[in-house]
Amino acid sequence: MAHIPTATGRLPWRASVLTLFPEMFPGPLGVSLVGQALEVGLWSLALHQIRDFGLGRHRAVDDTPAGGGAGMVMRADVLAAAIDHARGTDADLPLLYMSPRGTPLTQARARALSTGPGVMILAGRFEGIDERLIEARGVEEVSIGDYVLSGGELAAMVLIDACVRLIPGVLGAEASLADESFEDGLLEYPQYTKPREWENRPTPEVLMSGDHKKIAAWRRAEAERLTRERRPDLLSED
Amino acid sequence: MAHIPTATGRLPWRASVLTLFPEMFPGPLGVSLVGQALEVGLWSLALHQIRDFGLGRHRAVDDTPAGGGAGMVMRADVLAAAIDHARGTDADLPLLYMSPRGTPLTQARARALSTGPGVMILAGRFEGIDERLIEARGVEEVSIGDYVLSGGELAAMVLIDACVRLIPGVLGAEASLADESFEDGLLEYPQYTKPREWENRPTPEVLMSGDHKKIAAWRRAEAERLTRERRPDLLSED
Repeated sequence: MAHIPTATGRLPWRASVLTLFPEMFPGPLGVSLVGQALEVGLWSLALHQIRDFGLGRHRAVDDTPAGGGAGMVMRADVLAAAIDHARGTDADLPLLYMSPRGTPLTQARARALSTGPGVMILAGRFEGIDERLIEARGVEEVSIGDYVLSGGELAAMVLIDACVRLIPGVLGAEASLADESFEDGLLEYPQYTKPREWENRPTPEVLMSGDHKKIAAWRRAEAERLTRERRPDLLSED
Repeated sequence: MAHIPTATGRLPWRASVLTLFPEMFPGPLGVSLVGQALEVGLWSLALHQIRDFGLGRHRAVDDTPAGGGAGMVMRADVLAAAIDHARGTDADLPLLYMSPRGTPLTQARARALSTGPGVMILAGRFEGIDERLIEARGVEEVSIGDYVLSGGELAAMVLIDACVRLIPGVLGAEASLADESFEDGLLEYPQYTKPREWENRPTPEVLMSGDHKKIAAWRRAEAERLTRERRPDLLSED
């Protein structure tokens, strides 16, 4: 793959995805601001079909779990061949495997990844992948949350979206990033817009005051209140 | 919308999504087992274009934040009109708003939602939505993780996928659900498959022993070890 410098002179941020369902991509990532950024080359997307590295006439990618049990496990040899091929063009990318067993994705991690060269993501299916692949290829397991999905593709899209929107030039107003949830360790304060009164519910008086110092103080207090009420775990992590 | 009973006699599980980007759907949800389940009517998907309820000639859905600041906020009156319309056919569905400020989605919550009638999901864009809408329409905020996305659509897909795969008949072997991450409060144990030795890495001896009791004990111990090492927070929640 050729990597074309963007209008800003930067090389595009690269996402390389290994999957049995490349047809899912770009999908939601091809729409709106993230999709426009893909079109203008602020980021690039390479897809590798794992089945191309499958074994035998049926290009098998999985087999039954050693020790028994339901479902199928993706083979280490097949996945290693796919990874080694993908690394031929993108050797510098960190290799992530989307898995509920992984390190939880955070906004800080998304920001760190967004300032790097990109990500290579292994999207699994079935019961999971052979553990030896994880050890042998230096794969990092990353989780988008404490629930199980039918495959790693949606999780990969979530991770890519969280990173791409932080690339300079992708969102219109960069200033809007500073106030959002997690950027200062807090949940975002409540937002209001027109009309000033709706269904007998007025917009808080302070927001109409024009006093920017008072507004900033109110927003900070509201963000702290919401975080304390809903996610005290975020406050205790410091 | 007509809701057609499935082959099992159950009404399909219903997902109703309010979005500015209905063309993103079903997208990844139309592929593989979850997509096949949609095709055979084990679940249904209704899409509501929020812009249809926009104001004026340009069908505006958003306006500037009260009190100033970057970005745009989705209007309460527009969203309320869209919700009230969608509730005309699906009044019984819980209304969720995908937001990083919300209650974190867990596997237990996905399971609870999957045994109910379905979900109505508001997928936001821009800086967020007018807080009064949340109060006035009894919206529950749900978060898929501690990071920010460019819109609620991917988060909605994640929630729907997590629920749909738990609907009886969607996955092939239901037995495989019992062993996976979070179902017993633990991360899943390591999996192995053929070949028995790969790149000088053997499959753990115990898995080749044929002793099902020993294998079950090893898997349990590995699941506990992994959870202790990676996610002690899951253990302390009891």
